[in-house]
Amino acid sequence: MSVLIVGSTALDSIKTPNAENPRLLGGSASHASVAASFFSPVKLVGVVGEDFPKKYVDLYRRHKIDLAGLQILPGKTFHWSGEYEINMNNRRTLLTELGVFENFTPHLPEAHKNSEFVLLANIAPALQHHVLDQMKRPKFVAADTMDLWLNIALNDLLRLLPRVDCFVLNDSEAHQLTKEDNVFLAMKKIHKLGPKYVIIKKGSHGSILSSPSGHFICPAFPLHDLCDPTGAGDSFVGGMMGYLATARGPIEKNFRRGMIYGSVVASYCCEGFGLNKTTKIKKSDIEKRVKELEKLTKF
Amino acid sequence: MSVLIVGSTALDSIKTPNAENPRLLGGSASHASVAASFFSPVKLVGVVGEDFPKKYVDLYRRHKIDLAGLQILPGKTFHWSGEYEINMNNRRTLLTELGVFENFTPHLPEAHKNSEFVLLANIAPALQHHVLDQMKRPKFVAADTMDLWLNIALNDLLRLLPRVDCFVLNDSEAHQLTKEDNVFLAMKKIHKLGPKYVIIKKGSHGSILSSPSGHFICPAFPLHDLCDPTGAGDSFVGGMMGYLATARGPIEKNFRRGMIYGSVVASYCCEGFGLNKTTKIKKSDIEKRVKELEKLTKF
Repeated sequence: MSVLIVGSTALDSIKTPNAENPRLLGGSASHASVAASFFSPVKLVGVVGEDFPKKYVDLYRRHKIDLAGLQILPGKTFHWSGEYEINMNNRRTLLTELGVFENFTPHLPEAHKNSEFVLLANIAPALQHHVLDQMKRPKFVAADTMDLWLNIALNDLLRLLPRVDCFVLNDSEAHQLTKEDNVFLAMKKIHKLGPKYVIIKKGSHGSILSSPSGHFICPAFPLHDLCDPTGAGDSFVGGMMGYLATARGPIEKNFRRGMIYGSVVASYCCEGFGLNKTTKIKKSDIEKRVKELEKLTKF
Repeated sequence: MSVLIVGSTALDSIKTPNAENPRLLGGSASHASVAASFFSPVKLVGVVGEDFPKKYVDLYRRHKIDLAGLQILPGKTFHWSGEYEINMNNRRTLLTELGVFENFTPHLPEAHKNSEFVLLANIAPALQHHVLDQMKRPKFVAADTMDLWLNIALNDLLRLLPRVDCFVLNDSEAHQLTKEDNVFLAMKKIHKLGPKYVIIKKGSHGSILSSPSGHFICPAFPLHDLCDPTGAGDSFVGGMMGYLATARGPIEKNFRRGMIYGSVVASYCCEGFGLNKTTKIKKSDIEKRVKELEKLTKF
């Protein structure tokens, strides 16, 4: 089964304490789509400007990502520039040039409207709604978000939550949304807002699932060499959705392994700038780390 | 096999956002000994003053803790008072009255010197050395510490590390000791200082083991109701050592389960003030949560 992924498609200029990389392929939809492509065919929905490098279109194509939903509009591609602090935990935005992203309205090609697995990657909740409005009967919808939308589009986000099966956010966003310090109490409150599955991401501490069949403590893969965490959260949810769309049997049964696969793709994402490492791995590299995670958590 | 545990024995007055509890039984040796007592006989080595309440001696006795190494000296018992902030993550010390603890020298009764399992719970490194100096041939020695000793007794601590098999510290202490942000690189550096086993505690995010047979990612038990985290780290290492002293077969083989059992005892510790909850549970409660942790991490 294919996954429809809507989100941002951007050029990221990333500074870390050790290096500086201008105009890498970035954006939530790019990271999530490449991650999902290891498991399922992907239909990407996004927008880029006329300046979007051909090499990045080729990159999408190498991952067999369907680009029928990628609009190429007159103007500039969304450009984000950020800098990570010495411990890689905090980042600050240096520059945001929205370009063609400012007036983006995702239009789904007819064939996309029947997709059963939908990932509303991080993008304005109004656009996430707009995609859902065009869908016929999605079987499973997951949504990601970011602190920005909690600050400036909370009502749109609150209206979205009853429409999604799974909501993914990080621990500080969960605190911001629920005012709860305890992640388990925060997840309880988020369930009441609509989603059946709630995932709280905790960066290098892994993630936690709350689902109809209970909680799952999902480990992060141990990284000795963190290069650039940009897109790790998108890779996690993209990998998970790619896995779920293809795995046989009920979603509930596959959910934990989906998170593990997502966690492993995210670990590779962190080992290179932008998508540099993720685009160099093979499915067998992912399987290897999944087996290692089995060993790392067994008792 | 019994476990010898040396550490502080104190009266703790603890304030949290919701309550205030004066003069509870506390100290690293008290928490670690009660935790270990669920699995193995315990020999406690510590000091209290003449004001030490009889009810706390009775509490130790109910847990069949051997008190031959507990000195009762003229003067007052070590009294610590602290306050937790609203999110329970930060605590500040309001008062420290060392009392008889100020001039404490741990003397081991003859029978204690043959102990095979030794836990040097959090106490000045010089005193941890003094206990080891008296031991004959311990089979397995674990040591805990705190930021205070990294600040004021670093040389004593660095001399201690080659003498212990296992060193346990929390993530901020590991950073303080190694200047490494990455826990896996920090553990590598700590191995070079001596210990074969290194455990980094991460509070509600669990703990990580680095050992000759690789890493283990040990989960924390999900807590919906965090009452008072004082002593959780001591309960973790105490429970682990109690388990290891009794488990059959090589230590390496039992290590992961030891950490899981420690993690579960620590979770109970957090659910009551001081030792209030830990002293009310039964072995079967511990086994129940160990089984739940198996389910929570399986994929």
